Amino acid sequence: MKIKKVAIVGASGYSGEVLVQLLLNHPHAELVAVTSRQNAGQTLAQIFPKFASQPKSKTLHFTDPNVEILSKQADMVFLALPHGVAAEFAVPLIAAGCVVIDLSADFRLKSADVYKEFYAHDHPAPELLKKSVYGLPEFYREEIKKSLLIASPGCYPTSILLPTLPLLKAGLIKSAGIIADSMSGVSGAGRKAEVDYLFCECNESVRPYGVPKHRHLSEIEEQLSFAAGTKVVIQFTPHLIPVNRGILTTLYLAPSEHFSDAAGAAKVAEKISACYQSAYANEPFVRLLEGKALPDTKNVVGTNVCEIAWRLDPRTGRLIVMSAEDNLVKGASGQAVQSMNILCGWPETAGLV
Amino acid sequence: MKIKKVAIVGASGYSGEVLVQLLLNHPHAELVAVTSRQNAGQTLAQIFPKFASQPKSKTLHFTDPNVEILSKQADMVFLALPHGVAAEFAVPLIAAGCVVIDLSADFRLKSADVYKEFYAHDHPAPELLKKSVYGLPEFYREEIKKSLLIASPGCYPTSILLPTLPLLKAGLIKSAGIIADSMSGVSGAGRKAEVDYLFCECNESVRPYGVPKHRHLSEIEEQLSFAAGTKVVIQFTPHLIPVNRGILTTLYLAPSEHFSDAAGAAKVAEKISACYQSAYANEPFVRLLEGKALPDTKNVVGTNVCEIAWRLDPRTGRLIVMSAEDNLVKGASGQAVQSMNILCGWPETAGLV
Amino acid sequence: MKIKKVAIVGASGYSGEVLVQLLLNHPHAELVAVTSRQNAGQTLAQIFPKFASQPKSKTLHFTDPNVEILSKQADMVFLALPHGVAAEFAVPLIAAGCVVIDLSADFRLKSADVYKEFYAHDHPAPELLKKSVYGLPEFYREEIKKSLLIASPGCYPTSILLPTLPLLKAGLIKSAGIIADSMSGVSGAGRKAEVDYLFCECNESVRPYGVPKHRHLSEIEEQLSFAAGTKVVIQFTPHLIPVNRGILTTLYLAPSEHFSDAAGAAKVAEKISACYQSAYANEPFVRLLEGKALPDTKNVVGTNVCEIAWRLDPRTGRLIVMSAEDNLVKGASGQAVQSMNILCGWPETAGLV
Amino acid sequence: MKIKKVAIVGASGYSGEVLVQLLLNHPHAELVAVTSRQNAGQTLAQIFPKFASQPKSKTLHFTDPNVEILSKQADMVFLALPHGVAAEFAVPLIAAGCVVIDLSADFRLKSADVYKEFYAHDHPAPELLKKSVYGLPEFYREEIKKSLLIASPGCYPTSILLPTLPLLKAGLIKSAGIIADSMSGVSGAGRKAEVDYLFCECNESVRPYGVPKHRHLSEIEEQLSFAAGTKVVIQFTPHLIPVNRGILTTLYLAPSEHFSDAAGAAKVAEKISACYQSAYANEPFVRLLEGKALPDTKNVVGTNVCEIAWRLDPRTGRLIVMSAEDNLVKGASGQAVQSMNILCGWPETAGLV
Repeated sequence: MKIKKVAIVGASGYSGEVLVQLLLNHPHAELVAVTSRQNAGQTLAQIFPKFASQPKSKTLHFTDPNVEILSKQADMVFLALPHGVAAEFAVPLIAAGCVVIDLSADFRLKSADVYKEFYAHDHPAPELLKKSVYGLPEFYREEIKKSLLIASPGCYPTSILLPTLPLLKAGLIKSAGIIADSMSGVSGAGRKAEVDYLFCECNESVRPYGVPKHRHLSEIEEQLSFAAGTKVVIQFTPHLIPVNRGILTTLYLAPSEHFSDAAGAAKVAEKISACYQSAYANEPFVRLLEGKALPDTKNVVGTNVCEIAWRLDPRTGRLIVMSAEDNLVKGASGQAVQSMNILCGWPETAGLV
Repeated sequence: MKIKKVAIVGASGYSGEVLVQLLLNHPHAELVAVTSRQNAGQTLAQIFPKFASQPKSKTLHFTDPNVEILSKQADMVFLALPHGVAAEFAVPLIAAGCVVIDLSADFRLKSADVYKEFYAHDHPAPELLKKSVYGLPEFYREEIKKSLLIASPGCYPTSILLPTLPLLKAGLIKSAGIIADSMSGVSGAGRKAEVDYLFCECNESVRPYGVPKHRHLSEIEEQLSFAAGTKVVIQFTPHLIPVNRGILTTLYLAPSEHFSDAAGAAKVAEKISACYQSAYANEPFVRLLEGKALPDTKNVVGTNVCEIAWRLDPRTGRLIVMSAEDNLVKGASGQAVQSMNILCGWPETAGLV
Repeated sequence: MKIKKVAIVGASGYSGEVLVQLLLNHPHAELVAVTSRQNAGQTLAQIFPKFASQPKSKTLHFTDPNVEILSKQADMVFLALPHGVAAEFAVPLIAAGCVVIDLSADFRLKSADVYKEFYAHDHPAPELLKKSVYGLPEFYREEIKKSLLIASPGCYPTSILLPTLPLLKAGLIKSAGIIADSMSGVSGAGRKAEVDYLFCECNESVRPYGVPKHRHLSEIEEQLSFAAGTKVVIQFTPHLIPVNRGILTTLYLAPSEHFSDAAGAAKVAEKISACYQSAYANEPFVRLLEGKALPDTKNVVGTNVCEIAWRLDPRTGRLIVMSAEDNLVKGASGQAVQSMNILCGWPETAGLV
Repeated sequence: MKIKKVAIVGASGYSGEVLVQLLLNHPHAELVAVTSRQNAGQTLAQIFPKFASQPKSKTLHFTDPNVEILSKQADMVFLALPHGVAAEFAVPLIAAGCVVIDLSADFRLKSADVYKEFYAHDHPAPELLKKSVYGLPEFYREEIKKSLLIASPGCYPTSILLPTLPLLKAGLIKSAGIIADSMSGVSGAGRKAEVDYLFCECNESVRPYGVPKHRHLSEIEEQLSFAAGTKVVIQFTPHLIPVNRGILTTLYLAPSEHFSDAAGAAKVAEKISACYQSAYANEPFVRLLEGKALPDTKNVVGTNVCEIAWRLDPRTGRLIVMSAEDNLVKGASGQAVQSMNILCGWPETAGLV
């Protein structure tokens, strides 16, 4: 298997840091460049002491991002940049022949109109939206293999789409009335010097935000609509909780089949169980919980796994599905590496277990 | 104003501790007895060093609970006991002429059948269910004034009922399809030596539990049904998050009046705003947030205040209401003291600000 | 008792916020002005929702700091400003006849030379150093009564001086070789938008900093030297731990009297105990722990109390003294209010219990 | 390289859990048995959902510990048991020909008298104390290669000995007057259902404990005495802080060579630097920090690395050395695996990076 040379643009944020960790340890990829304007000139070991035990961390220096140089150094480039900035790099890098795996929201949507509605400005490179693939491997594996521009999904979207897409595709739930209630660790806000994310502002606190129209809705709803074959609009409420990493999402769904007692629920349960088994029994990074187990972020933090459990409520006729993931791994950098593995024909779990 | 003598049965748990704090500082109540089997013989100061600066903490000793003695010492008795145990004390204490303010779930329901459904055994004193009053002052103030047995509401129920009851009573929301998603601090589990609540099991973790039929549903639904004039069944999912104190509840409600754009939403908003203003503008312990503010537990922890904010979503036609409270104060001991103040004819905020 | 009008300059930081809380509730002081450049024009309730239940929070607006206006509005002015900035306000305010209670380090030292050594620039108003009093009430009560400029001690210094000064004054410990090892909550770093104090940088982390020459050493050593009657140089290591509030200090001291067994220790213990009793038995805000109890920040957070416990070690001949305080209350704003109470002839505990 | 079969006795505690994680992923060891009385009959996946993605976690069941069976199944047995219980297993397992790697304190001391002084009962198998080796690889590598009973060091001892032993051996510091001040995460207390370690008792709290004679002193002092060639008695104060994992130790040491200014310090610094370089430059699991960097537990948690930094203080003539480690990895299970690697002739870092 040929080693590929990879670079990370924007390697000093939280997602960038996890990417560094994963790529330093990847068996088939060689990390050849890391960029960061503020850290240019310093080694990985100086900025991230935790990586100092790895020899390469002492020789690899952060550089100012430069497309021309990057395109010569690397076969593939990961963009861990703020929304809007990523496109500025993606366009010329692709033109220069690099594969781009973008962790921002810039290429996740197919519709430039929806982009404008949610991001309040015209899309900077609408022609690329047709070429990009939504990097959710469990649903776009074949497309990922052939793409040169992978738009890695957002953290909240991953935690909502993985539990929902199989049911929607199988027609087991109604596409109307979906509610997603999520709790995220503070790393989701990025390594930004803002008062709102200071320790004392987040510790001993829990708060909703972005109610009722968070930007991530755009990609969630687009993907749900593709799966349902009809326009889907959902309710989504994110909350900030005092943990470093982890997203817990609780979904309120309406089964297509009505039930109002334990017997009715059992019949529906059989179908849901079969649907999830069919979708995920062989997926290395989706874990269907059994018995009384419910998701807990502490069981997935540091891994690329998304845990899923569900309960039918005969009192309300509703289906409750709960998921847990590490927002920086399955919700960001791990999933991006998973896509890289697929794209390169490597084992999908390479560097991820 | 005559000073009343009060006792706390079960004063060594988290609710009991907050009751001690509030009653040691109350201008019209005198704490004369605190019971705790495991701490009998020790002073308040020995068990709770934080109260050691108050002279009474060095002279007041925990005792074994004894109804006969308590009924002679105290005019009013607070029961901060596990569900099921409280009734054993309430019955003889009331017989002995004491006013009882019970923080357990034993007397919160009017229906002994519902009690049996949710608590899996017959109610130990069903005749008292008719005499007890549900101690939610904002809705039962007049009844509290005349009652000898106050069943102080649960923490989750308070965080759900305060935002919901006014809307339901005014017919502004549908009684069907209500969803309540709650996050609670770990003190809600009590001061119990169980592995599940160890620091390392809760820190860096968020997890749902009790899905889909938590016991608190019984009192929530009974109160909602009274308000709606029809049987109400709701969806409720509690989550455990790593904070000591605080509950954040996000409610998904269906306005009675349909709307699908900003203009329609504005008309509905006017009515909701008027309803909340009418219900709470003069309530000392409900804070309606204005402008862009959303609830945050850190703004209510340590106080008897419940914060409420709401948003209409023209995309879904739904009403999102969010509340924050301290589960040990407005959700337990503070609310119990508020009821005591009402019952005794004292200023409702006495000892609570 | 005549109500005094008080103002806070720099009321939007963590110390400022606690000052607001204490002064809004003070029985003899009326908060008439709060300044904050960034929040000018907004009410207290808008910036600090937690105070919104107090009527004044809705009418009192933050203003830009203006000495002329402040000196007309207020009898006393609290300065909760960064080091160096406080002096710019203190000088004209005192000239205008205001009493100044400064929470910064600007006037804590008597020696302008030491100031220059530790703060790397000339003292801006050295003549005021003679007029200021070090606002540690337990040791400067009489001086505080007569002063117009109170330099309220730092958080670390308070946690070190309260356990040490009585022993040093009584000659029970040697002045050489003192070691103070402290752990502080993150609010000690102030409400500053810096990456180092983000939630994810502090949570699940403990780290020393400022080793070996932290600025607080200057005032600690000056006060210890006054007490010892000789120049004292100590070792001090601060650590940052993931709590919002609280400082725990462990002191390693050498008793003047040698001992090497339990019997010897018992004799020394008697003298130490008598010394502490004499110093603090009647102090409302110093709590000498008894029996097996050791300090715990959770027992003092939110109070103006400093807990102290000590142990003699017959194996090493050393005395270990441990203290716990809330860095924002006894370590800052509470102590400042305590000084105000003394200065104004009010009960020393007014507004602090 | 021949695969060795390994078992873990007491695999349900925090150290046991990390051992499971390390051994499930070890390239040369095969985990064949895990025991736990309370979990007997359940699979690894059921008890530790986080391991559920590994196939073996679904087939390996916890069993009741049985020496006869274990000695047939495994070549090597790790004991992650409480002090005192480990010896009951070690004796028969060694007799049956197994290599034993014990994580308890049972075989760490050479002196049965010291054991009795600190553990308050006679040593259960004093003859084995002669055969056991103290499993600190950086100092006992050769002995580990030949031993059948490895007593893996305690978490606090590791954090104190690694920074101290090289200096003491080189005569660069005095053996008298050593002070070690440590802060530990709560996992150090084990997965025990005790009120003291509940989330709400540890969160927002920092407290010293075991002052002044913690049991770990016995092994620390024995090792320091061996290194110094004279009896060493130290001062040690552990503190509990609200993190899951991590120990930060700050050491106060007296350099043998006097200095009192920057020039003098520079000369001493050169020797200390050379000593540490000589001891650790080639050690894979000791990281000497450079420049302004100071240890931070968040940089070592999840790794087998111990970070060390030091500062000379010309004001006091003292040397301050600070270390950070993960108490469950380098302080327990990682170090035990490191010893196993050495003993088996495998690369020392196998399964640890």
